[in-house]
Amino acid sequence: MSETRLDVLAIGDAVVDVIATASDDFLIEERLTKGSMQVLDADGAAALYAKMRQARETSGGSAANTMAGVAALGGWAGFVGQVADDQLGEIFAHDISALGVEFLTPAKADGEPTGRCLILVTPDAQRTMNTFRGAAHELSVEALDAEQIRGAAILYLEAYLWRSAGPRGAMEEAMRIAHEAGRKVAFTLSDIACIKPHRAEMIAMLDAGAIDLLFANENEIMELADLPTTDAAIAALQDKVPLIVVTCGSEGAVAVERGRRVSAPIARIGKGVVDTTGAGDLFAAGFLVGQARGKDLAESLRIGAIAAAEVISHFGARPESDLKALIAA
Amino acid sequence: MSETRLDVLAIGDAVVDVIATASDDFLIEERLTKGSMQVLDADGAAALYAKMRQARETSGGSAANTMAGVAALGGWAGFVGQVADDQLGEIFAHDISALGVEFLTPAKADGEPTGRCLILVTPDAQRTMNTFRGAAHELSVEALDAEQIRGAAILYLEAYLWRSAGPRGAMEEAMRIAHEAGRKVAFTLSDIACIKPHRAEMIAMLDAGAIDLLFANENEIMELADLPTTDAAIAALQDKVPLIVVTCGSEGAVAVERGRRVSAPIARIGKGVVDTTGAGDLFAAGFLVGQARGKDLAESLRIGAIAAAEVISHFGARPESDLKALIAA
Repeated sequence: MSETRLDVLAIGDAVVDVIATASDDFLIEERLTKGSMQVLDADGAAALYAKMRQARETSGGSAANTMAGVAALGGWAGFVGQVADDQLGEIFAHDISALGVEFLTPAKADGEPTGRCLILVTPDAQRTMNTFRGAAHELSVEALDAEQIRGAAILYLEAYLWRSAGPRGAMEEAMRIAHEAGRKVAFTLSDIACIKPHRAEMIAMLDAGAIDLLFANENEIMELADLPTTDAAIAALQDKVPLIVVTCGSEGAVAVERGRRVSAPIARIGKGVVDTTGAGDLFAAGFLVGQARGKDLAESLRIGAIAAAEVISHFGARPESDLKALIAA
Repeated sequence: MSETRLDVLAIGDAVVDVIATASDDFLIEERLTKGSMQVLDADGAAALYAKMRQARETSGGSAANTMAGVAALGGWAGFVGQVADDQLGEIFAHDISALGVEFLTPAKADGEPTGRCLILVTPDAQRTMNTFRGAAHELSVEALDAEQIRGAAILYLEAYLWRSAGPRGAMEEAMRIAHEAGRKVAFTLSDIACIKPHRAEMIAMLDAGAIDLLFANENEIMELADLPTTDAAIAALQDKVPLIVVTCGSEGAVAVERGRRVSAPIARIGKGVVDTTGAGDLFAAGFLVGQARGKDLAESLRIGAIAAAEVISHFGARPESDLKALIAA
């Protein structure tokens, strides 16, 4: 097995977040479920945007946020995602590159505009996400760089993008290349809404041995296993995946590797919880860096918990403090 | 004189702010003067952006921020500014409309892309601005709506945009229309860098009676009068402009109308000074609303001071609290 050049290479949604405050009444009028993530087409996105308040824009995407975290932790990260040749695409490419994440995917000159996620923040600080995937779901096998995939210790895939048929084809090819090169493949279940319509295919993917490391929260793992408790869900899935990591909100996280169970409490940084956006993304970043650098489960969980604690201590889904110093402390 | 439909109509730069943190060393390497505002061409903007850290984007522009403030104060505001038919133009138009500011200027389909202001925030919270004006300085007479100008009690112009020859032509035509309809014309000196190269033309404009209300800070009024103290500068200019308003940082503001001088202290809201960006813009908003609604100088200054205090109590150049409630309190 040749040496790796990257710790983690992610394939995910390349989207720009468009964030505005909204009232609870607005969510009711628009029939949006608070805290959920829904997918909009171009017309639906335009209609919702027209009703939104003044917004601010930042680069986002769950797996992209995770790669931002890997880079902030001192890891070598890469990201594969499709943007269009437009201003939002330029912003996305600028931001992820500025964080030190390798981003080689060429912008698409034709087709849909760069994807965006319209985020409504209610007075209780909850976020309701409405994604127009645009160019992001036009990702195809042609966007892959086989050398880049072979050079990454871990390939990290998100269910948000996987549920779209075209990108799933690209992900399947990337998994094949990664495994052929002796690399690990990690997969995050992303959101409960990604699972139900695709449960059978997801289980088949796990049964085929395609996934070495599965990330989920409690709701997601129960939904995938179709079982009412986290423990039962882990028990049902652990023969299919060598390593399962489940985040349990304020109760920390648990990792189960071939029957061995290790858990870790949450960490606390600064003022505590200001905005929980990005907690799961950054937890995954920390755990992935630990695994890529040969740390044991307990230490990987600890790095994940600290990275998650940092991102929830301020507004925004990408790290702002020196994560390397926090881990060393 | 017919009734007015708007309290204030502004003509200014339509730009999207691109805000990133930067080190002091970075400013030195890039030969940027901290706290200054400089104009970049497309290549210069692209080169600086490529070196900037991850950024966030918000709609900006000095006069546009002022109109956001007028609307937040319960005033009827309009804005005239040129954007391109692109994503940043869409963002700008969305945001100013979402604030309740009338924005009728059609996007330009050809020509330069929508303007942006690359803002570098150093650890001392100072902001260094680098503007690529793009479509904003392609504003021409064709963009004007004569009925809209006639329907506004005050026409408000910013020197940032005025110093560009094309837009200046549009502003001159707008001033003519406004005065013909019996309206007032207000002008802000914007920034010291706008004044020196254009001092003679600015003085000629004042001598011609084109400006009824002049906004400046102390450095700007001294630069325009080419005199070493604020009092001397006001004395030298007061015969040329019926009403001069000068903001004096932490010492508040002073208004001089036909020899009568009224001053007001700064106001304080919430945590005090968090980010001074937008203080001058919002002070102008409050003063303009007061004047448009027939308030006296002291009350207009007071509204301006409260609006300025609100915007410096948080990050960002546009108001976030209920300004109407703050004024009423």
